[in-house]
Amino acid sequence: MKLINIAFIVFATVFFISCNKTQQPKTDIEMKDLMIRISEIEIDSNYLEEYKCILIEEAKTSVRVEPGVISIYPMFKKDNPTQVRILEIYANRKAYKSHLETTHFLKYKSTTLKMVKSLQLLDMESIAPEMMPEMFCKLKIR
Amino acid sequence: MKLINIAFIVFATVFFISCNKTQQPKTDIEMKDLMIRISEIEIDSNYLEEYKCILIEEAKTSVRVEPGVISIYPMFKKDNPTQVRILEIYANRKAYKSHLETTHFLKYKSTTLKMVKSLQLLDMESIAPEMMPEMFCKLKIR
Repeated sequence: MKLINIAFIVFATVFFISCNKTQQPKTDIEMKDLMIRISEIEIDSNYLEEYKCILIEEAKTSVRVEPGVISIYPMFKKDNPTQVRILEIYANRKAYKSHLETTHFLKYKSTTLKMVKSLQLLDMESIAPEMMPEMFCKLKIR
Repeated sequence: MKLINIAFIVFATVFFISCNKTQQPKTDIEMKDLMIRISEIEIDSNYLEEYKCILIEEAKTSVRVEPGVISIYPMFKKDNPTQVRILEIYANRKAYKSHLETTHFLKYKSTTLKMVKSLQLLDMESIAPEMMPEMFCKLKIR
């Protein structure tokens, strides 16, 4: 009987651990407060690789340490890699303002200033906000 | 002793169920095969609301029934709502081609043809593909 009990404990623990591993961190936010933006950026081709490294670092840090930064998703045009597009989603305006004051954002801004030829910020609205949690969550890295 | 066993079974079952509820459906794909696109669409203002309804329906159906459709995320410019941008992500080119042949896409295409004033398809590449599963998954609807 003791062996059976141990087996149950192991079973329950395994599930407990696997649950916590597969769950994504959730941010309980109001969809109506979301701030969505597409940044259209042209980069000086002399600095392209350097810029991408700095951007990746900044985006990763922001998403990981700031609960109000939902997404900073950077892309570039296949036929013109100096044309960068970033989909940025913040929980609300306060989260965005707070993001602008972080050391990682300020570092990104100051180090990339000379690399950016043009910058346009497009404020967007989601057409189907209720779909958002389904997006990207289908992905599993391998 | 029997009561303890029952308690363990209940405990394990609760975790098993909660695990399956919180997990998102995952698509095991190769990041290098991803097809990422931004569609830039201008809509005739006479049809804007009608267009948005049809687009939402098509996007929802595609993401839900097609495992290879990772994201069809529609937005519009706040200062010019007839300017629509859709972030589309497919597992690979095959998934995209298969999407183009679905009844829901063909219905969207035929019913919105007269509503679309211009359409530009921008093929994009992700700058930090390893970040994708973290995007949007922070969100929890309330």
